[in-house]
Amino acid sequence: MAKAIVVICDGLGDLPVDGRTPLQAAKTPHMDLLAKNGVCGLMYPLEIGVIPGSDTSHLNLFGYDPKMFYPGRGPLEALGAGILLKPGDVAFRCNFATVSNSGAILDRRAGRIGTPEGDKLGKELAKIKKIDGVEVIFKHTVEHRGALVLRGKGLSANISDTDPHGPGNVLKCESRDGANESKHTAEIVNKFMKMAHEKLRKNPINKKRAKEKKPVANAVLLRGAGAFEKVPSIYERYGIKAACIAGGALYKGVARYIGMDVIDVKGATGTKDTDLHAKAGAAALALKNHDLVFLHIKATDSFGHDGDFAGKMHMIEKIDAMLDELLKLEDIVLVLTADHSTPVSLKAHSADPVPLAMMKKGGRVDWIERFDEASCARGSLGRIRGKFLLPLVLAMMGRAKMYGT
Amino acid sequence: MAKAIVVICDGLGDLPVDGRTPLQAAKTPHMDLLAKNGVCGLMYPLEIGVIPGSDTSHLNLFGYDPKMFYPGRGPLEALGAGILLKPGDVAFRCNFATVSNSGAILDRRAGRIGTPEGDKLGKELAKIKKIDGVEVIFKHTVEHRGALVLRGKGLSANISDTDPHGPGNVLKCESRDGANESKHTAEIVNKFMKMAHEKLRKNPINKKRAKEKKPVANAVLLRGAGAFEKVPSIYERYGIKAACIAGGALYKGVARYIGMDVIDVKGATGTKDTDLHAKAGAAALALKNHDLVFLHIKATDSFGHDGDFAGKMHMIEKIDAMLDELLKLEDIVLVLTADHSTPVSLKAHSADPVPLAMMKKGGRVDWIERFDEASCARGSLGRIRGKFLLPLVLAMMGRAKMYGT
Repeated sequence: MAKAIVVICDGLGDLPVDGRTPLQAAKTPHMDLLAKNGVCGLMYPLEIGVIPGSDTSHLNLFGYDPKMFYPGRGPLEALGAGILLKPGDVAFRCNFATVSNSGAILDRRAGRIGTPEGDKLGKELAKIKKIDGVEVIFKHTVEHRGALVLRGKGLSANISDTDPHGPGNVLKCESRDGANESKHTAEIVNKFMKMAHEKLRKNPINKKRAKEKKPVANAVLLRGAGAFEKVPSIYERYGIKAACIAGGALYKGVARYIGMDVIDVKGATGTKDTDLHAKAGAAALALKNHDLVFLHIKATDSFGHDGDFAGKMHMIEKIDAMLDELLKLEDIVLVLTADHSTPVSLKAHSADPVPLAMMKKGGRVDWIERFDEASCARGSLGRIRGKFLLPLVLAMMGRAKMYGT
Repeated sequence: MAKAIVVICDGLGDLPVDGRTPLQAAKTPHMDLLAKNGVCGLMYPLEIGVIPGSDTSHLNLFGYDPKMFYPGRGPLEALGAGILLKPGDVAFRCNFATVSNSGAILDRRAGRIGTPEGDKLGKELAKIKKIDGVEVIFKHTVEHRGALVLRGKGLSANISDTDPHGPGNVLKCESRDGANESKHTAEIVNKFMKMAHEKLRKNPINKKRAKEKKPVANAVLLRGAGAFEKVPSIYERYGIKAACIAGGALYKGVARYIGMDVIDVKGATGTKDTDLHAKAGAAALALKNHDLVFLHIKATDSFGHDGDFAGKMHMIEKIDAMLDELLKLEDIVLVLTADHSTPVSLKAHSADPVPLAMMKKGGRVDWIERFDEASCARGSLGRIRGKFLLPLVLAMMGRAKMYGT
């Protein structure tokens, strides 16, 4: 049975600007080689007409229907941050943010504060160990991102975000169902918000940033509250040992949630300066002990959110160079796709389907000339939904099951 | 309303060997004409990522979802062998095999013993009429294949195969649920296995085969136990009178199971030397009294299982010549497809979709140039699942129903 590497470029799909998408404008000889020697299509990561989140999309692509298995973003971020969750834990995705004295949000990402500074601020918040008898775990991950976990009896994730998800004021956390558990949890969240603000605004890093006229990280915004429950692993469900190579916490979290081994790679930062060469090398190595390696690249999405066409195009060219290394591996199924489109013209996720190419020596060939949104659309896979990606990969690996005789 | 001939070439789909599949390597002017003048697509006979069995696939293609209607292979083989099944009968697919004194299987098909010899051995086994009060019916079909039926009260099909489906020893039949019925049935099966072995090893045909250094057919392997129940006919469900022209017992069995008339054609052997000209003639004739004729050709699958690229290619060219006769028929819907892929490189069924072309004078046209796995992928049908074949055929016949006004 063949092994597989599934490369997911976050937010890769796009819309044309002056007639060309970043993928169409980029020089991508290796992506094109993959398309030429394999089968291609367009994929709706979730459903037609639905804008995929990164979390729900990745779950779906690896065979976990988010309608059944989505625990909310919080638990996935917390798992990705390396927090060992227990059933019943309520977890949140956190952003460091810049907030005025009146509570107005001035910058939702505190000027995309760097990972080293974020780390130090995170350690300050980690000093908050308990609120009203509930255990508190905070962990910073990458840049402005972090995770918060509340552990204790009688908690509920049926509460609102303190992050308004756009311009506005920091919100008060509220119960969504009026139950005692959610009221209690919301109270603890609001206490944490205050305590965090106090700790952050006094921190020397922020005093330094203020002097340098950089946005201070004086508040934490919480969103995606979710209660953690264990789910059957990808090995239990599909019989494959899988590994994940990613920089971003969310992706590591999805991987851990579904029972993939997460391989930490030096230089895999989840940011624009990530070391793709190191990631490709680690992926090749991981094939020794795994059947499938999920290789995630975040920066394409970040450039999309920033509306940076040239940046996205150049990142695509870097990924193309990395693919050269993967194309040299013998006898593997190589898959290239995305979890959603993040068009630079929209600076946000969109419902547009993403290009998909998958090849294996001796497999069928579509003779598509280029790997991009328009060319892949002419491939033999047609338009598929994300839930069919894993069955297609498993079949190409020689792992499909027979029904009947 | 137009009539239809649905030609199913078993295991026709393939993977490229040196860049071409057998279909792509073969000269197929008539198949190409069909593709050019009709609509094309690729079809997953069951579902994406599922390897179809021949039995489940044919049921699905003719509108019988195997999840609801699959009785197991045994009853289909028995019906195909011409045994009139009664509700509650437990039936098996049988192979003549070559077995050592210790029970090791030396050849699962007794050297693909010929139909005349298999027939004589089958008549010997048919002398076993009763075991422990249970009626026993054995019937040989084609080459090494046959069917066994047990008829009586308190039988169960929840028992294991005696065929290990690969190298190994003959297995003991066992109850799968520990119930009295299945234990009782397993006992009878094991007694039959012994009696058959005794009868076969003494048979003069085997003495002759041993002298000629051919593998002797000294044992029967049983698999696919299933209990027979009557299902609504294709006429009751879809309003069409259908006929089947096939050599292989399984396909005749599927046809009888769903209420098609089975037309026996002299020279339709279900083997590589089948008389395609006779089959085409019979199909044309059958249109007089039927709305739809299912014409099955087995040998493409057999060549796939044997890994014989040239054999499969030449068989395809023979089928192509046969199509010339069908293309001359006026005013019919002509459909050409397969029940699954049997790539010569794998010597087994695969989950790869199969090419599909369907035409009718005055119908839509895709301008696809060739009938093969890659060309049909560009057709207007895209990638469909097998359950949509019959609705498409019925619509082309002018038999679709209106919903609304």
